[in-house]
Amino acid sequence: MLEFTVLSTEGLARRGRLVLNRGTVETPVFMPVGTYGSVKGVMPDSLEAMGAEIILGNTFHLWLRPGLDVLRTFGGLHRFEGWTRPILTDSGGFQVWSLGANAKVSEQGVAFQSPVNGDKLLLTPEVSMQIQRVLDSDVVMQFDECTAWQKDGVVAAEAEVRRSMEMSLRWARRSQDEFARLENPNALFGIVQGGMFETLREASVEALAALDLPGYAIGGVSVGEPKEEMRRIVGHTPHRLPAAKPRYLMGVGTPEDLVEGVAAGVDMFDCVMPTRNARNGHLFTRFGDLRIRNARYKQDESPLDPTCGCATCARFSRAYLHHLDRCGEMLAPMLASVHNLHFYVDLMRRVREALQGQRFAAFAAQFRLDRQRGV
Amino acid sequence: MLEFTVLSTEGLARRGRLVLNRGTVETPVFMPVGTYGSVKGVMPDSLEAMGAEIILGNTFHLWLRPGLDVLRTFGGLHRFEGWTRPILTDSGGFQVWSLGANAKVSEQGVAFQSPVNGDKLLLTPEVSMQIQRVLDSDVVMQFDECTAWQKDGVVAAEAEVRRSMEMSLRWARRSQDEFARLENPNALFGIVQGGMFETLREASVEALAALDLPGYAIGGVSVGEPKEEMRRIVGHTPHRLPAAKPRYLMGVGTPEDLVEGVAAGVDMFDCVMPTRNARNGHLFTRFGDLRIRNARYKQDESPLDPTCGCATCARFSRAYLHHLDRCGEMLAPMLASVHNLHFYVDLMRRVREALQGQRFAAFAAQFRLDRQRGV
Repeated sequence: MLEFTVLSTEGLARRGRLVLNRGTVETPVFMPVGTYGSVKGVMPDSLEAMGAEIILGNTFHLWLRPGLDVLRTFGGLHRFEGWTRPILTDSGGFQVWSLGANAKVSEQGVAFQSPVNGDKLLLTPEVSMQIQRVLDSDVVMQFDECTAWQKDGVVAAEAEVRRSMEMSLRWARRSQDEFARLENPNALFGIVQGGMFETLREASVEALAALDLPGYAIGGVSVGEPKEEMRRIVGHTPHRLPAAKPRYLMGVGTPEDLVEGVAAGVDMFDCVMPTRNARNGHLFTRFGDLRIRNARYKQDESPLDPTCGCATCARFSRAYLHHLDRCGEMLAPMLASVHNLHFYVDLMRRVREALQGQRFAAFAAQFRLDRQRGV
Repeated sequence: MLEFTVLSTEGLARRGRLVLNRGTVETPVFMPVGTYGSVKGVMPDSLEAMGAEIILGNTFHLWLRPGLDVLRTFGGLHRFEGWTRPILTDSGGFQVWSLGANAKVSEQGVAFQSPVNGDKLLLTPEVSMQIQRVLDSDVVMQFDECTAWQKDGVVAAEAEVRRSMEMSLRWARRSQDEFARLENPNALFGIVQGGMFETLREASVEALAALDLPGYAIGGVSVGEPKEEMRRIVGHTPHRLPAAKPRYLMGVGTPEDLVEGVAAGVDMFDCVMPTRNARNGHLFTRFGDLRIRNARYKQDESPLDPTCGCATCARFSRAYLHHLDRCGEMLAPMLASVHNLHFYVDLMRRVREALQGQRFAAFAAQFRLDRQRGV
């Protein structure tokens, strides 16, 4: 089940509420990524404490490890990973795309060798729906082909992008049919493709809207294209999707990208950036990004971000994090991941507050100014 | 300051209470090791939640990184690492010993090259006291020479062990003098050496007791000697130390070793085993040790230890931990470290309860039986 209510709007931006089988999600929302059934380096109770209402899992990876037999034993992903709030699962399309030359795409689906044990596997819209039925995620993504921005240094031509987008549409219909056949009680989202071509994006939106799915995602962005290209598509597509359905911008992006996405009418975001950057000592703060490895923090008694309410900033200094990072202590990525995820989750909380007060435009402007000030 | 009260005894075993500058520690106690100012992979609030009342820090490592300038800025180790409860610091003797041929020992102290930046450094009893004054740890360890059990395959001869033990005694006096000169408000412990020779251990005990230090440790065990040798010394030395002072067995050991140490009259323990083993998938449980990498746990829905009250066992299954370990997810060592440390801390809590009820002997017998049963 899925109920989505737009509570208020400001320009194209929306303040909404998403009710799923396992709970309610206030939107706009950032969803931490838990590829293998764990948000890297972060305890589930830390995620709950920072206010994460929904997290991601990955169909492709969880299919390979632990495998469906284990997930069936646990009655799905929730009990397996000890998470009771909603989960959204990616369909595997993006991961199969990441395999590059090691995957063979046909109308039927994608054939590839398991990177874990070499098994020959075939992922199709039907198989993806069957796996996600076992995972029992609250939001199921259609199986799609993530269109590459370029291949061997050549930017994808319109004909090629159209062919790919149209196959994703046929896979959307097959996903929808299989989802229904499996009597999946959760909610299926379609994925808009069409690369950097507005006309193709519009065709994709139109065809998907006709399927009357409970929600829609924008895929095929943040796949190597220049930033201006991404911004053009993020500005173009979201508000063309059905207004009554939630809109999810897949795999994007920086804090600035999220605020821009909200302004363009996006309701849901996910990205590995907060956790991946944390592991590399790249911290997000109100006044810009902070590289904790920089020697200037060696003696710095202040928290990462004095305006931050996260568990890391409440207890630890920049100097301590600098030291842990330098010593290769596991606590460094742990504390940094909590901080960065909190930054993203809390940014969306502040965005929602601003939207409720009809002051999102002012909030977004101040946010950009603050972030440019520098730490 | 240090106040130690023996609340009750059963045979040689003691139930005690240690009052230090930063708080009270119920003994027998296990102290988690935080070498570089962090207990590897464990958040300080997890340590608090599991009931850890005192943790270790390491003088040698903290001297090199972050260095005294940083630690002075923070007024000591407590504020730097965000830990308000008591801290005990090792003197650096053991680490210098670990450097082996790269360290030159003389009556003055130990000369070595910094493994971090190649600087030529000299660690002496005076320098160790000066560093520990900056660290402001609640319990300061004397600088000692940890006598090797063997060198180049040859077991240390009595004359060599005696020479080393006697130098440690002179270093104890120099540590005591410097500790007093620095007006350190915390408590200094002496360290008994003497290798595997009872007569040397007795001479060390006698000479250290004459210094009337607030507490005593047994060093030079768990340094590569056969297990029977260690057990012989653990059975021999603790009860010969002054009964009114706390007794600390350094760097020991398995859960069984701890219970045996308590029976021999030991009050305090530390060991890297719970965290190090956790990182290698070696988990402690009531009914024996569990290797989480074993394929038999792939589908196992039960917690690591159904009788355990730790945060990991409350929420996660063996199958999930097996999966995380297999995928190389950081959450695997995190959850395992919480479990193993809780096992040690909780074991000491159960030991204290048994001692209070004068049923420690029965507890210890049942504990050994349970542990041999197998998971």
